[in-house]
Amino acid sequence: MRFVTYRMRQDAARLGVVTQGLVIDVARLGAASGLALPASMLEFIDLGPAAVRAVKAALEAAGDAVLVAAGVPEGNVTLLAPIPRPRKNIFGIGLNYTEHVAESARALDTSDQLPKEPVIFSKPPTAVSAWNDPIRHDAAVTQQLDWECELAVVIGSTARRVAEADALAHVFGYTVINDVSARDCRRAGQWIVSKGQDGFAPMGPCIVTADEIGDPHNLNLTTHVNGVEKQNGNTGFMLFNVPQLIADISRVMTLEPGDIIATGTPAGVGAGRTPQEFLWPGDIVECTIQGIGTLRNPIVKA
Amino acid sequence: MRFVTYRMRQDAARLGVVTQGLVIDVARLGAASGLALPASMLEFIDLGPAAVRAVKAALEAAGDAVLVAAGVPEGNVTLLAPIPRPRKNIFGIGLNYTEHVAESARALDTSDQLPKEPVIFSKPPTAVSAWNDPIRHDAAVTQQLDWECELAVVIGSTARRVAEADALAHVFGYTVINDVSARDCRRAGQWIVSKGQDGFAPMGPCIVTADEIGDPHNLNLTTHVNGVEKQNGNTGFMLFNVPQLIADISRVMTLEPGDIIATGTPAGVGAGRTPQEFLWPGDIVECTIQGIGTLRNPIVKA
Repeated sequence: MRFVTYRMRQDAARLGVVTQGLVIDVARLGAASGLALPASMLEFIDLGPAAVRAVKAALEAAGDAVLVAAGVPEGNVTLLAPIPRPRKNIFGIGLNYTEHVAESARALDTSDQLPKEPVIFSKPPTAVSAWNDPIRHDAAVTQQLDWECELAVVIGSTARRVAEADALAHVFGYTVINDVSARDCRRAGQWIVSKGQDGFAPMGPCIVTADEIGDPHNLNLTTHVNGVEKQNGNTGFMLFNVPQLIADISRVMTLEPGDIIATGTPAGVGAGRTPQEFLWPGDIVECTIQGIGTLRNPIVKA
Repeated sequence: MRFVTYRMRQDAARLGVVTQGLVIDVARLGAASGLALPASMLEFIDLGPAAVRAVKAALEAAGDAVLVAAGVPEGNVTLLAPIPRPRKNIFGIGLNYTEHVAESARALDTSDQLPKEPVIFSKPPTAVSAWNDPIRHDAAVTQQLDWECELAVVIGSTARRVAEADALAHVFGYTVINDVSARDCRRAGQWIVSKGQDGFAPMGPCIVTADEIGDPHNLNLTTHVNGVEKQNGNTGFMLFNVPQLIADISRVMTLEPGDIIATGTPAGVGAGRTPQEFLWPGDIVECTIQGIGTLRNPIVKA
């Protein structure tokens, strides 16, 4: 199933499930079925797989006529980030696709050797923004604003020292993150200023549940800037796959429901191109992952 | 004033103010004065300076006899971390004291040049632990567990692109953090695995309000391991001082009430010593900052 966080006009944020192009309010769907379901994505994730099953059953029980009466066409809602305010930093994975390791070594200050362990960094929760939210370009801060389309894993249940074989059971679903990076803001090798600025983690348009995605390592991902393709990869080429990342992180840092892991970007970032290309006010960047959707954001002058 | 988060036996966590060696429950003190005051540090910080003034007035209005009747001797409570669960990552500052830059360049992989801008990294909120909580030593993860005594700034109000001159007005208070670091867990220069593991941010014993600290750049800080002095510095020697750090971070990443900045450690870490020294099960590490107190933690085998 596809879950969104949305609002109508200036109303408060709501949790929705998307079916047949309609956004159905989850709490109201639950109420109509005698179920107490929450209005926020994090509270919903906290309820575990039973809540997902309950929504599925309620959707199946409701007739098409009921859904059409209760639903709002997708185009009529304002999408927020699926998790507008994570409870902690987002975990990012650097250098997780072979050809991106090579382009980074050419263009940035990273090694040309493939990493032996996942390279982990973080983005604060204040970096999160939504589909269509502007990415602010502050020319006093950066001249090298860049894109990175990434599959983001949303954790469903607490994971502490989990084995790879058990890791996928801890996944609620998947979304798209643009790991926006100001290449000229790295400091002594640390990436948080480069990658953690306000609005540098656009996320969305929805979270697709793990059961609907199936294998997370067979998804095409592309980035287009002003309609021109810049990245075209497949999650099958990750150096460290999703179970390995969850096992590795949770070995030392407990993962919790609602936590987000951005799993790294394939080749084709602006810094790695010849000549280099960066984002400027007026540009539109679109990150698409097969089976999830397109995350579109305009660049605006700060 | 000195604020703690504590509990009695297995009761829920409470917010306390410490006076004359007694812990006074802030919510109950407020209730006795007709004021609604919260039972958690984050909610208290959210109320702004008026809440601090209200507690001060209520303490002054209460006679000594009342305080003795209402208070619990400090030794009779269990101290939790002052902010047991921050709302985001802790911001850490690397290489912020001259001689620590030199010892790091000798012992680790950092530059011997003084940084031109603050070097920022992060620790997830799951790293936080309390006074006397064990620091787990997992020999399968690290053979280089190290200490770093640091002054931690607790933000009191939202700071977005604040000027240095205005920065201290956004500080609620100060506490001590031991920026525990597994030196052999750095990856491609990123520090979060080294510094972000569960329990690697002991914090406490209390938060001292900014008005009581006065100048945060004239505080002695020391670390003792098993009673032997290992670090002895003064916050006056920070390369980037507290206003500069707040102005720098908030230029691109919004700081929010309850956010924490660990401002870096002076020379004397284990990795920088000749021969190198690290922490092992059975060791006791004590980080002390003048005017705040001593943060004591035992190392235990995982």
